[in-house]
Amino acid sequence: MIIQEIQDASAEMWKSSLPHVSIDSVVFGFKNASLNVLLLKIKNDDHWILPGGYINKNESIDDAAQRILFERSGADKIFLNNFGVFGDLNRSEDYFKDYPDHLWHKQRFITIGYYALVNQSDVTPVIDIFSDSCEWVSVNHLPKMAMDHQSIIMKALAALREHISYKPIGYNLLPEHFTMPELQSLYETILGQKLNRGNFYRKIMRYNILTKLDEPRKGGAHKAPHLYKFDKENYDQALKGLNW
Amino acid sequence: MIIQEIQDASAEMWKSSLPHVSIDSVVFGFKNASLNVLLLKIKNDDHWILPGGYINKNESIDDAAQRILFERSGADKIFLNNFGVFGDLNRSEDYFKDYPDHLWHKQRFITIGYYALVNQSDVTPVIDIFSDSCEWVSVNHLPKMAMDHQSIIMKALAALREHISYKPIGYNLLPEHFTMPELQSLYETILGQKLNRGNFYRKIMRYNILTKLDEPRKGGAHKAPHLYKFDKENYDQALKGLNW
Repeated sequence: MIIQEIQDASAEMWKSSLPHVSIDSVVFGFKNASLNVLLLKIKNDDHWILPGGYINKNESIDDAAQRILFERSGADKIFLNNFGVFGDLNRSEDYFKDYPDHLWHKQRFITIGYYALVNQSDVTPVIDIFSDSCEWVSVNHLPKMAMDHQSIIMKALAALREHISYKPIGYNLLPEHFTMPELQSLYETILGQKLNRGNFYRKIMRYNILTKLDEPRKGGAHKAPHLYKFDKENYDQALKGLNW
Repeated sequence: MIIQEIQDASAEMWKSSLPHVSIDSVVFGFKNASLNVLLLKIKNDDHWILPGGYINKNESIDDAAQRILFERSGADKIFLNNFGVFGDLNRSEDYFKDYPDHLWHKQRFITIGYYALVNQSDVTPVIDIFSDSCEWVSVNHLPKMAMDHQSIIMKALAALREHISYKPIGYNLLPEHFTMPELQSLYETILGQKLNRGNFYRKIMRYNILTKLDEPRKGGAHKAPHLYKFDKENYDQALKGLNW
């Protein structure tokens, strides 16, 4: 049941890491109008987990989040947002109940949740020694998750949806020039629902972050849709702004 | 330097609490068009702190946040939102550097931040045994704060301002019937800036949360302003909604 790597890691963790606290990251990837999440399959187990780990005694939590995500998935230099803390009783203890008492993993852990939204093409998943695989999985078809990781993903998705209800999104996720339907499709994919075209147009225009190009997309039909690009300065301003 | 209460509490903490994790709550109070925060002055010290404490080994973090706030300030049944985690190196260690090594407080702590916004009249501060006083203090005139507590307050204020940029606020903070200038004044107090009257009106009306009363306020001038009340059903809907 207990693989040697976990026994060895446990002994090392007691020396290097802060007990009782862990970090789990929910990295959402956007690709071909689909929203996915980066998951690991635990070795010799049929459960999947988020890329997560522990905080070194001499490391800030933000640095730890970056390091852990890179070590466990190969995803490097991802901008991570803390979106919540998960500290119910027995959120991880039950899962490790058959482990020997001296194992690091058997403690009560409070986990700090971070999330990111990336262009999926920018990340190539890498499998670490504790995992059988590391893959992008559709948020609509999650596999069997260990511990409370499914509910952590759902909370991260809710946080992402809240954020895009008052802050712009799309930069680095869409090509440099895009049509209004393409931008709307990005929002619909993240929100998991269809939006009214007129309402979407009015709300997006209120941000004042789009520049309309003179030329429509080439090679299309004779009623080719207008192309837009982001006005980066206004976009960054809107990210900081409070919308009043 | 070390008062007896802290020595005694330290011994008790090692038995009852999770090491390395603490909770600090930022309770904002609204009263007479002023935004205040609930602070404690540390006994025999000229620093002030947020009402904070530690998580029992058999307690969820949300339960801990409620209990700690009540024990340290008398504020009961406050709805607290987790808004961030503070885990830089040396955020609390420096402050306790002269304490003996065995003391609980000398550990590295990662603190979980919660915030609330209450009608100040609903809370009567109570002083605990570690404090000289427990008071509402204006966010614009904070006293000398211990550790990173000033920056925790500023992060909580930023979170509050973000939240009111896409979710309604005001229920329980204003009288049942109120004027548009009174509602605008609440927003201005929290945002710390004047708002354009026309923009404010348009944005608030978009939420569809206000019911206009037939009668203006009695006893006023002959051009008394219109009165409004919240439509509680739509208000609750807007709290949940994503604004698309």
